Amino acid sequence: MVSRAEGVFTRDEYRRRAALTKAAMAEKGIDLLFVVEQSNLIWLTGYLAQSAYVEQSAVVDPNADEPMLCVRQQDFPAAVHLSYMDRARVIGFPERLIANPDENGYDHMVAWLRDAGLISGRIGVEMGELSATAVNHLRRIMDGASLVDATGLVTWLRLQKSDEEIVVMREAAAISDAAMGAAVERISAGVHERDAVRAAVDTLIAGTDGVAGTQFHSVNFCTTPLTGTSHIHWSDHVYGPGSQVNIELGGTRYAYCSGLMRTVHVGDPPDRLKRLHEAQVEGLAAGLNAAKVGNTAADVANAFHSAINRHGFAKVSRCGYAIGINWTETSASLKPEDKTVLRPNMTFHLMLGNWIDEDFGYVISETFRVTEQCGEALGNFPRDLFIK
Amino acid sequence: MVSRAEGVFTRDEYRRRAALTKAAMAEKGIDLLFVVEQSNLIWLTGYLAQSAYVEQSAVVDPNADEPMLCVRQQDFPAAVHLSYMDRARVIGFPERLIANPDENGYDHMVAWLRDAGLISGRIGVEMGELSATAVNHLRRIMDGASLVDATGLVTWLRLQKSDEEIVVMREAAAISDAAMGAAVERISAGVHERDAVRAAVDTLIAGTDGVAGTQFHSVNFCTTPLTGTSHIHWSDHVYGPGSQVNIELGGTRYAYCSGLMRTVHVGDPPDRLKRLHEAQVEGLAAGLNAAKVGNTAADVANAFHSAINRHGFAKVSRCGYAIGINWTETSASLKPEDKTVLRPNMTFHLMLGNWIDEDFGYVISETFRVTEQCGEALGNFPRDLFIK
Repeated sequence: MVSRAEGVFTRDEYRRRAALTKAAMAEKGIDLLFVVEQSNLIWLTGYLAQSAYVEQSAVVDPNADEPMLCVRQQDFPAAVHLSYMDRARVIGFPERLIANPDENGYDHMVAWLRDAGLISGRIGVEMGELSATAVNHLRRIMDGASLVDATGLVTWLRLQKSDEEIVVMREAAAISDAAMGAAVERISAGVHERDAVRAAVDTLIAGTDGVAGTQFHSVNFCTTPLTGTSHIHWSDHVYGPGSQVNIELGGTRYAYCSGLMRTVHVGDPPDRLKRLHEAQVEGLAAGLNAAKVGNTAADVANAFHSAINRHGFAKVSRCGYAIGINWTETSASLKPEDKTVLRPNMTFHLMLGNWIDEDFGYVISETFRVTEQCGEALGNFPRDLFIK
Repeated sequence: MVSRAEGVFTRDEYRRRAALTKAAMAEKGIDLLFVVEQSNLIWLTGYLAQSAYVEQSAVVDPNADEPMLCVRQQDFPAAVHLSYMDRARVIGFPERLIANPDENGYDHMVAWLRDAGLISGRIGVEMGELSATAVNHLRRIMDGASLVDATGLVTWLRLQKSDEEIVVMREAAAISDAAMGAAVERISAGVHERDAVRAAVDTLIAGTDGVAGTQFHSVNFCTTPLTGTSHIHWSDHVYGPGSQVNIELGGTRYAYCSGLMRTVHVGDPPDRLKRLHEAQVEGLAAGLNAAKVGNTAADVANAFHSAINRHGFAKVSRCGYAIGINWTETSASLKPEDKTVLRPNMTFHLMLGNWIDEDFGYVISETFRVTEQCGEALGNFPRDLFIK
């Protein structure tokens, strides 16, 4: 038998998540919830191994205390090891269902549910996460029940973190700070970009103060002449005088991550960059200041925009998004159109990357939690334009 | 204006891909192909930045030499930088479409296509990749055309690589070898698992012989008592006598990766592990031997199974899968049910991880290309059970 991992979260924490889910289901008249989105599945069960490229699912039944998890047989030991539920709540589907066009892992879960008398009433499925092909297939094999779109049901519940989740996210933020420090330290004229990346990534794994990274997200180092881009990992650059490096990275603890962006310049920065930095730092403070309980996501964005507009700058893309398990949670966004009311311990990546010209941009960000007073940054990295 | 990247592949190579796609479309009576799957989009355009969490698309029109690419405005500079097409073939959709429930990036591409008179006839969409919600939305906004399922159309074309692609995959394989070497070197009693991971990942970025990694996939280090698991990144272990470490990693060059697995043991390995290793190495050789042009994917799997069965072992999960852009290509699998006929330069990860008990498994693998004679491993790492 496989061993059980030392739990990251208490069973009470998972029961809280299940209870929230059941309440949201009741509100929408959903009798059974069929969850496939990877982050939602991690949140509900604790199973965070990277096997979501096959059809795995978790099911929430209002009449059961804990969810059922169905993974491929090959992943059954990892699922028993990592998920909090009793072993009997984890099932493995046969390996012959992998890359099988006729039948897949969902069939196995649905057969189990049918045997248990649970294929009836209104079943919630994430139609915005499942492919059209998969939903058609589910409609066939869930014959007798009616399918209801439950996209976002669990995702929105994840927005407001528990104190246990905040502890883990602070650890991730400390790792982000250390990794950013290692990158800034390494950057100077004559250094290959990849060597700065190595310093950062090494720290994302090693962690800091005895708290190690448990996995890693990729990093983005977008350097002159590519400071107008945002999603390039890194390039073949050798830094020289005038190189500007826009860095995005994030530490990870048990799937929870904390994003962080800073800008570094080799040699004296141009005046425009200095002015933009000053405007953005002021905008960052204004955004955090507005991020208190009772305000809206829009208020945070508007506070930022007002501040940088006063300096003669503008930003077109949104100011951030919910963050937690996975980098970009598809719930609230920090933008003027988003009227989500902020509640305690909602967490956001206040992502103020500002790509102004095709070949010029600047980045700064903080991951924060909402408090009664303001948005409290989870990390503590100086908000400088770093000169190397 | 943003600079253009030095092309990884020739324009002729991309034109070859477009021509293959158009031929496959003609065969299926598809008038226009709407591609969203990230790896297919990379293959068609060269745009490999990691921005696929928003609605981006490429369109293949039989009457145009090159595809159209539509990304968010924020990614427009990176798309112009990385994709091979002329600048006029890249369009940016407005940032207000991000996280917008009513309208998204697909609307922008479809509006462009409608203006160009291209929304008519049979339009192929990847219904196995697009969410059910997205397909319903496309049906509405593509009114006047009929939607045809084109899932896998491009994916299957990617299975057989060009010589240019093989060059890049060999580079990735060399990086895999170097990273595995660094991990094996670092493992010994008293070492923290994360430090072996750091050695491997550092090499995945630094590369070898002047060829650096361009991004990285995560790694899996599954160690006693977790050798029966396969998708756990790494754990808090400190290696000691009797620790067995199952490693899966892969170097990456311009999105192309090459997977590699090896098993390491600290101290004298138990007899069962030694016997399993011998059986698996023989099975690996048998599988490669069968992987020649004209044989089938099933022949490779059967050759492996026969060899290990003779030693009294069996493996339940499939023996591998197509590999190239992204780790697991969803085309052919190496399993007895898959009758795909092997053609020159098809590439597979012959993934012989064998998770026998909940708490005991062993891994070995090679990434290979199909030749007239056999499967030729792209790397050159010793097929040993490493004793440390």
